[in-house]
Amino acid sequence: MAENAQGTQNTENTENVRNTQNTENTEGGDTRVSLLGLGAMGGALAEALVKAGLRTTVWNRSAGKADALVAHGAVEAASAAEAVRASRLVVVCLFDHDSVHEVLDPLVGDLAGRTLVNLTTTKPEQARQLAAWAAEAGVAYLDGGIMAVPSMIGRPEASILYSGSEEVFRRHEALFGLWATGTYYGEDAGLASLYDFALLSSMYVMFAGFLHGAALLAPAGVSAGRFAQMAAPWLTAMTGGFAGFAEVVDGGDYTVAGQQSLEFSNLGLFVEASAEQGVSAEPIAMVQRLIQRQVDAGHGTEGFARIIESLKNPAV
Amino acid sequence: MAENAQGTQNTENTENVRNTQNTENTEGGDTRVSLLGLGAMGGALAEALVKAGLRTTVWNRSAGKADALVAHGAVEAASAAEAVRASRLVVVCLFDHDSVHEVLDPLVGDLAGRTLVNLTTTKPEQARQLAAWAAEAGVAYLDGGIMAVPSMIGRPEASILYSGSEEVFRRHEALFGLWATGTYYGEDAGLASLYDFALLSSMYVMFAGFLHGAALLAPAGVSAGRFAQMAAPWLTAMTGGFAGFAEVVDGGDYTVAGQQSLEFSNLGLFVEASAEQGVSAEPIAMVQRLIQRQVDAGHGTEGFARIIESLKNPAV
Ligand SMILES: NC(=O)c1ccc[n+]([C@@H]2O[C@H](COP(=O)([O-])OP(=O)(O)OC[C@H]3O[C@@H](n4cnc5c(N)ncnc54)[C@H](OP(=O)(O)O)[C@@H]3O)[C@@H](O)[C@H]2O)c1
Ligand SMILES: NC(=O)c1ccc[n+]([C@@H]2O[C@H](COP(=O)([O-])OP(=O)(O)OC[C@H]3O[C@@H](n4cnc5c(N)ncnc54)[C@H](OP(=O)(O)O)[C@@H]3O)[C@@H](O)[C@H]2O)c1
Repeated sequence: MAENAQGTQNTENTENVRNTQNTENTEGGDTRVSLLGLGAMGGALAEALVKAGLRTTVWNRSAGKADALVAHGAVEAASAAEAVRASRLVVVCLFDHDSVHEVLDPLVGDLAGRTLVNLTTTKPEQARQLAAWAAEAGVAYLDGGIMAVPSMIGRPEASILYSGSEEVFRRHEALFGLWATGTYYGEDAGLASLYDFALLSSMYVMFAGFLHGAALLAPAGVSAGRFAQMAAPWLTAMTGGFAGFAEVVDGGDYTVAGQQSLEFSNLGLFVEASAEQGVSAEPIAMVQRLIQRQVDAGHGTEGFARIIESLKNPAV
Repeated sequence: MAENAQGTQNTENTENVRNTQNTENTEGGDTRVSLLGLGAMGGALAEALVKAGLRTTVWNRSAGKADALVAHGAVEAASAAEAVRASRLVVVCLFDHDSVHEVLDPLVGDLAGRTLVNLTTTKPEQARQLAAWAAEAGVAYLDGGIMAVPSMIGRPEASILYSGSEEVFRRHEALFGLWATGTYYGEDAGLASLYDFALLSSMYVMFAGFLHGAALLAPAGVSAGRFAQMAAPWLTAMTGGFAGFAEVVDGGDYTVAGQQSLEFSNLGLFVEASAEQGVSAEPIAMVQRLIQRQVDAGHGTEGFARIIESLKNPAV
């Protein structure tokens, strides 16, 4: 089902939200939505709703965070319970999984029959757990992973990944378009978080690799700026290799011809060179360990993509 | 000096090589060049020279590897010494640093007054050591790092990084253009290897990050091919962040406003989620350790680029 992911952009959909006539608790010029959690991200999400003219009820644990929103037309609820009761669509953007339970567990009766969209960052298993909890309580549940910083909210470059109830995603697709490009990944509520984590972790790992290269060159008087100019197009070009690795991984045969072998990819020299430059070899030593485990298991002549087997079968 | 790197493409320069009239041992229609080492890479380099009509003398430790080249006009030397004596320009592409010494140490007298271009992969310190050894022996030395596989040799997408004698680079720029786009990085002979290692390590680290993402998604039934389609444009977009990190690193002030803080970049959840999916967290745990060391040292509110300090100051 992950293959069916479909996106929605915020440009056209804004109109739909305003134009659709509907019951008071669903979308339309009088769409009601409640948003719990007005931190940096929740505040930005609320602002986009208020600006679009939606009847937005907001709540935050500590006082003062709703003031600017109220000035622009939001209604501040005196309690989380009051916020939940104000709208059929309840969005939460709290700190973490535990804070979601802390706020919502006492309100499980009020939530029954409503829709919960959880944009708090959680692990895939936590999202699945919340979906099960919601199902038990008669709450329609959609999980979201936000790939943006607050200042990007409202722009199509911002991306929010959704999974869980497809019906909820379709019903509120126009509203979601007010925040970001929204993409639906499937009924498994953990999928949004999984994709989010897979993309963000690959980004952080790439950043560490870039900064390692910059650290290696620094003692020779090469600026990080100079290396950035080289590394950005270089790594961009090298993303061209992903499809080939994926083909081998999905095909399940690491012996197909034309691949760079694991033995050939011996990174021992890189690890040594890093140490000799007085720079930590951690990033490249990590890759070398993944390679080494496959070589030790007798797969040295097979393709580099096989390091995914070291990842799929963690060392004990 | 690294800022002065200048490139040369193989397209126009081929003509220059053929047209320049010159003494027998330098470039020109009768350019002589000797190439020692006819492995996968050395063989491809020799082929490009022979095809361009250069008077190419080749030598390989074990027999048989020169046959195809001889059929196309190369001269096979009976010994490494004979190969060295045949041309003023001597190129070596052997297995590693030790094999270069093994082959050339006995020939130091023959090499005196000639030019040595070493395209064998070596560590920066090894390249510097060879440059010193060559200087001592009265040999002009240029080191090269090949960023290509043998099948790419002769195409402008292939890249060879050079450092060491600028005079040698300039003199043979046209010949180098027969192999790849050649770029000169400076008199420090270790620079070509340093740039090569910095770029290749960042590539391998990025590949590991990509395969980690693919491993995370696999249990949910998402193919690596599907993830490759998302990750390639995503990581390409994220290379846009390098320049900002570099500005902070080069500026030396990790407290400048507008950066994502180290505390905010806490990747503990990613590490846990990876383990919960049954996937090794090694790639992201590596980044988390670099972050943690800076947080532990009291820099949690500073920018993410500060992880370069964890790399520049290895943990003991
Ligand atoms: N900021 C980003 O760039 C970004 C990007 C992607 C995803 N996210 C995710 O969005 C979510 C919110 O992030 P944020 O940046 O808005 O964080 P934040 O500025 O720290 O705000 C946290 C919010 O959670 C509330 N909260 C925390 N613990 C609570 C509890 N036990 N009970 C009730 N409320 C509680 C806080 O209320 P108080 O005001 O009372 O403390 C505040 O409203 C997080 O899951 C984060 O991972 C953020
Ligand atoms: N292939 C690539 O994709 C690639 C890419 C970038 C850089 N490089 C670098 O290019 C260099 C050569 O690589 P390659 O792919 O051509 O390797 P290769 O196919 O394994 O060939 C190695 C060559 O070195 C010779 N050799 C090894 N030890 C020797 C010794 N002690 N004395 C004399 N000759 C010795 C071999 O001679 P015999 O035939 O007698 O064994 C052979 O000619 C390496 O430093 C490699 O890192 C290769």
